[in-house]
Amino acid sequence: MNEERNIDERFMRMALAEAEAAYSEGEIPIGAVVVCQGRVIARAHNQTETLGDVTAHAEMLAITAAAAALGGKYLPDCSLYVTVEPCAMCAGAMGWAQIGRVVYGTDEEKRGYTRLAPMTLHPKATVTRGVLAGECKALMQAFFRDKRR
Amino acid sequence: MNEERNIDERFMRMALAEAEAAYSEGEIPIGAVVVCQGRVIARAHNQTETLGDVTAHAEMLAITAAAAALGGKYLPDCSLYVTVEPCAMCAGAMGWAQIGRVVYGTDEEKRGYTRLAPMTLHPKATVTRGVLAGECKALMQAFFRDKRR
Repeated sequence: MNEERNIDERFMRMALAEAEAAYSEGEIPIGAVVVCQGRVIARAHNQTETLGDVTAHAEMLAITAAAAALGGKYLPDCSLYVTVEPCAMCAGAMGWAQIGRVVYGTDEEKRGYTRLAPMTLHPKATVTRGVLAGECKALMQAFFRDKRR
Repeated sequence: MNEERNIDERFMRMALAEAEAAYSEGEIPIGAVVVCQGRVIARAHNQTETLGDVTAHAEMLAITAAAAALGGKYLPDCSLYVTVEPCAMCAGAMGWAQIGRVVYGTDEEKRGYTRLAPMTLHPKATVTRGVLAGECKALMQAFFRDKRR
């Protein structure tokens, strides 16, 4: 395994830990971290139920927290790691924030931005998908299986 | 002028007043109101500069406030009025919130959702565009003309 993949998996594990925190709160288990120059500057998980607010996706909360941490609303030198492919809302927010790199775990075929809003990220942003995809997906599947019981 | 158009213009004037408040704060002048059963339950204006947060668009703040006002995160019986065509992020949020009707003023050709994310609103949502479009657009143009001075 190469070094970059190693680093990506390390940060995705942190996003997964956030997703697990969401799960334990009865939230759809999606977590995100924002990394700047090798340092985690924000971490968040989905809180839509807790806050009663559809805008409280992990990525949105992480972007707001990262901007507060850096003292500026643009994040071109940041990478955002998220366990599930972002939706159009979150990809739109990443575009406005000029997030430089997006790394996600499992695909979201129904509501993912690659299907619904493929041009919303910043034109210079790079994207890596499929990091720890199996674990990210398994957590989602376990959550919805529990829900149906 | 028919009755519905009259009502739409009345609520769009409130959104315009919010946009003017944004202008006076040095913010890109976009305002929004959320109406439920003929009553305004939320109003907001763009605060991205003030809050240093790209997610603080008028529509996002209005959706969050409307959900808090109603005590539930879904807003199918609500209409959202906004002075400028929503972006992909805001349209995505409207989709998640199941906003029943979207009314906007002037088109946003570059970043508007109709170009970048046309399928993000709720499938049952209806859309009315062009309400007080001239005034909504004139306010935006005045702002950017001021900025260039």
